[in-house]
Amino acid sequence: MSERSVLSRHDLPSVTVDRLVRCYRLCERLKAEGRESTLSQEIGERLGCSPSQIRKDFSKLGKLGTRGSGYRVDELQSILGKIIGKGRQWDVVLVGAGNLGTALLKHGEFQRQGFRFLAVFDADPDKVGRKIGDLVVQDVSRIPETLGKSGAEMGVITVPATGAQWVARLLVEHGVRAILNFARTGLWLGGDVTVSNVDLTTELEKLAYYLSAAKA
Amino acid sequence: MSERSVLSRHDLPSVTVDRLVRCYRLCERLKAEGRESTLSQEIGERLGCSPSQIRKDFSKLGKLGTRGSGYRVDELQSILGKIIGKGRQWDVVLVGAGNLGTALLKHGEFQRQGFRFLAVFDADPDKVGRKIGDLVVQDVSRIPETLGKSGAEMGVITVPATGAQWVARLLVEHGVRAILNFARTGLWLGGDVTVSNVDLTTELEKLAYYLSAAKA
Repeated sequence: MSERSVLSRHDLPSVTVDRLVRCYRLCERLKAEGRESTLSQEIGERLGCSPSQIRKDFSKLGKLGTRGSGYRVDELQSILGKIIGKGRQWDVVLVGAGNLGTALLKHGEFQRQGFRFLAVFDADPDKVGRKIGDLVVQDVSRIPETLGKSGAEMGVITVPATGAQWVARLLVEHGVRAILNFARTGLWLGGDVTVSNVDLTTELEKLAYYLSAAKA
Repeated sequence: MSERSVLSRHDLPSVTVDRLVRCYRLCERLKAEGRESTLSQEIGERLGCSPSQIRKDFSKLGKLGTRGSGYRVDELQSILGKIIGKGRQWDVVLVGAGNLGTALLKHGEFQRQGFRFLAVFDADPDKVGRKIGDLVVQDVSRIPETLGKSGAEMGVITVPATGAQWVARLLVEHGVRAILNFARTGLWLGGDVTVSNVDLTTELEKLAYYLSAAKA
């Protein structure tokens, strides 16, 4: 197989990437449970999708697994890890040092999974200078200088919707290529920037739909 | 049109619900901008999908809009609002009063969108008794009693992965029918419970994939 082929940009749709990332995590758990091999049936059950979907995803990654005996957990994890960029550290900057931003900075799991917050920014003079963990909140005007020095490529935006587009453009102008956006608004950026929007209120609203629907 | 038909459970796939919820929000913004009508073209652009996708979604909601002149914003918002359960208050309980849980409790947008946190629980004796906003953190052992009294149907889980399944079952046993799960694990619950998993680390990992892919 050519691993390079699966690594080329836009080769895998977002839903496939999502399953591969979660499958990587499942491999971690299976190893912790002392397991050496698994089957597409089990992977599907534990990720909430069909075994055939899993086999289809894996078929895009080349020859993997043996008919009947399934997949070796360590081999699977290693291949998935290479595809999703594991085994290196990703430098991240965060803009918006409110409650959510602070929670994310303190979220130990990011660090454990290879994501390191390099800097945190806010526009509020009351927040600038405060310490959150090991970082001191900097004024947003320092984004160009700090990003120029650090070379961070990932940004997390936890500012109000009105400021998000401006912040996102500033990050992108200074080297950020991937943004996790918690602001309640879409971002209009160039095509070479990947944006993942997480709107927590929308998640509750979707649940409200299902509760409403259940009663109708 | 029969609105009842679109309200029946599982009628709309999750991706459609997601677009309808975001379209409802777009209507709010359009109204704030003083707009009275809109077109599927504009809705698609602002939600990041095709106009034909929007027309297809809306076709499931019955007769809506006029060929050429598009959709009246207030009418569209009203119909979407009924479908996604707006116009009423949803009572929510949260389990896990760590940084993320605290940030969610303090997230003003939930309240503004009709979600009211009724109670917060934690298993850590150091956290029990603390005040977060207007709520006092209760011990998890009080979940049955508190839920029995309140009748809350929505739960938010921000506990570590190891405790999530236990907490989820306890919530469901006491009336919760929809769960927003931030724990890094899937939940195995009955088919009449809707679970939305938000794994923030997975979101960063997906971005890491796209950054890796861009360089390959």
